[in-house]
Amino acid sequence: MASGEEVSNQQIILKNYVTGFPKETDMEVVSSSIKLKVPEGSNSILVKNLYLSCDPSLRVRMRKPENLGYFVGFTPGSVKRSYIISKALSGFGVCEVLNSGHPDFKKGDLVWGITGWEEFSLIARTETFRKITCTDVPLSYYTGFLGMNGLTAYAAFFEVCSPKKGEYVYVSAAFGTVGQLVGQFAKLMGCYVAGSKEKVDLLKTKFGFDDAFNYKEEEDLASTLKRYFPEGIDIYFENVGGVMLDAVLLNMRLHGRIAVCGMISQYNRAKLEGVNNLFYLLTKRILMRGFFVLDYGHLYPQFLETTIKHLTEGKIVYVEDVVEGLEKAPSALVGIFQGHSVGRKVVLLARD
Amino acid sequence: MASGEEVSNQQIILKNYVTGFPKETDMEVVSSSIKLKVPEGSNSILVKNLYLSCDPSLRVRMRKPENLGYFVGFTPGSVKRSYIISKALSGFGVCEVLNSGHPDFKKGDLVWGITGWEEFSLIARTETFRKITCTDVPLSYYTGFLGMNGLTAYAAFFEVCSPKKGEYVYVSAAFGTVGQLVGQFAKLMGCYVAGSKEKVDLLKTKFGFDDAFNYKEEEDLASTLKRYFPEGIDIYFENVGGVMLDAVLLNMRLHGRIAVCGMISQYNRAKLEGVNNLFYLLTKRILMRGFFVLDYGHLYPQFLETTIKHLTEGKIVYVEDVVEGLEKAPSALVGIFQGHSVGRKVVLLARD
Repeated sequence: MASGEEVSNQQIILKNYVTGFPKETDMEVVSSSIKLKVPEGSNSILVKNLYLSCDPSLRVRMRKPENLGYFVGFTPGSVKRSYIISKALSGFGVCEVLNSGHPDFKKGDLVWGITGWEEFSLIARTETFRKITCTDVPLSYYTGFLGMNGLTAYAAFFEVCSPKKGEYVYVSAAFGTVGQLVGQFAKLMGCYVAGSKEKVDLLKTKFGFDDAFNYKEEEDLASTLKRYFPEGIDIYFENVGGVMLDAVLLNMRLHGRIAVCGMISQYNRAKLEGVNNLFYLLTKRILMRGFFVLDYGHLYPQFLETTIKHLTEGKIVYVEDVVEGLEKAPSALVGIFQGHSVGRKVVLLARD
Repeated sequence: MASGEEVSNQQIILKNYVTGFPKETDMEVVSSSIKLKVPEGSNSILVKNLYLSCDPSLRVRMRKPENLGYFVGFTPGSVKRSYIISKALSGFGVCEVLNSGHPDFKKGDLVWGITGWEEFSLIARTETFRKITCTDVPLSYYTGFLGMNGLTAYAAFFEVCSPKKGEYVYVSAAFGTVGQLVGQFAKLMGCYVAGSKEKVDLLKTKFGFDDAFNYKEEEDLASTLKRYFPEGIDIYFENVGGVMLDAVLLNMRLHGRIAVCGMISQYNRAKLEGVNNLFYLLTKRILMRGFFVLDYGHLYPQFLETTIKHLTEGKIVYVEDVVEGLEKAPSALVGIFQGHSVGRKVVLLARD
């Protein structure tokens, strides 16, 4: 289609602030229109969205505004004007550049970054965008696994957790993009790794975890962890929070490290859950660090090179759950909080 | 008195495991006897105790044994055989060497280290002991301020908190040995410092804190902190835990640092208190680290040189609360948990 043409643009918008678990009806599919050209003289880019990622952190941005220290939340019905100019939800995605006012990007480039939950997006600030140069792997991988989630796993594991060969690593929410990758990095380092998630067999056979358990089948998480880690836990990769963290603190070893990369058990709560065992931070000299990937962007090139090499050699594998069609995005996002998804949920909009 | 003579030895022993706040009756003054000579062929030292320190962490060691990861707890009525051979309580103290089987120590040396709550102690393992070479300052200072508490303040502040000029520092339990010193180190670094403790005026006039409040007079700690730190807190020096930590987490700035050096509000609890706001570790990318001074022993010489220099130049001051007589030790220890003490409580046994 000709550049500059005005076309219809299907969008997913937030209908109201979410309390508790998100519902499909908290979002709405609306029709809008967009000019496929960036404003004269701007350094924006205009992209066609190919894949969108259903990231649990979107839920955090659907809360009523609070001082969360995080990047900007969504406001129902209003147009965002920071990264993207759109009233759609936004998150990481893979896109094709249709028109560019920015010297670093040109028509036809495949890119990934924070884009809109819509067919086409006008990206006002391109800081989160990177060009995709290696296309020997599925493009969808760049929504998370070879994007920010992968870098989260890499930087949080190697920079925050300082792993050593033979150490005991516990990964919660081990089936998420980050969890899968952390477990595999840990195995490549020579660590013992166990994870928790419904699909116990897959964690062991597919990702090579030493052991795994289904936390939903366990009555007393502290004893469960004691059973899987009789020597204690050196590294906990925290994606869950709440009662899981409490159980872990009891089972940590001296000088343990906890990278806090997510607390999915807390996202849907109006009132945050109490953690009782923080005293062990003191007695066991534990380091605990909240991690946000944008602080570690400089590590992306080395992460990408390492991971693509392992992927090509079959030393690292990845599982995605792709659904097709933008209109499926709300139910896909809602689904990840029901704990059923195997691997990263990705929405396919167009195959390029 | 002649070396080798058997003399009477007054001791403070633990009568029963402590639950809740410690009471004087949890301890007992008993009479024993001791030979003022180390066993033939051993590398022990035999010391006369001059000053003992009432350290809040003694309370932790009076609990029923749990997997606290800490150094060995006390067992009522039984003789410890690790660092000291004695049934007395033990903790940091300043002593004079009366007899030595160890090549590093000789009769007449003034030393500090982990000794018994008794008149004379047989020290089987001298790893915690250091010789006192500078006696231009009160000897009692080596029980804490120029000993392990001082090193805690120094190492936890500089190594864990990585302070920068102009940052906002909040010190809880600011009147303790560690709190006093952290506040003064922070001022010397050019930080803004506020503390909480009953003696608000003293914190400001004596130790040069920018501001201070009495947490006992505040109904809503989160709003109080918001008032004292409108820009938020960069560094929190944690000595308290519980509801204080919750209020602090709400008021931390992005990339804040929390050194966990004590959680005095938790020591007397049978059940640990829940902390609800850990989610902010994630959203504000906070580092939180449990600190134990014995991991930082290599920094002692540089700490001592720096601190004595500042002390001599009047840039650092210190407040102690000395009580005289071993029999006063139980009430002195109990008193620190009632929040009335001004500065470190020290028990004077003998003036050398």
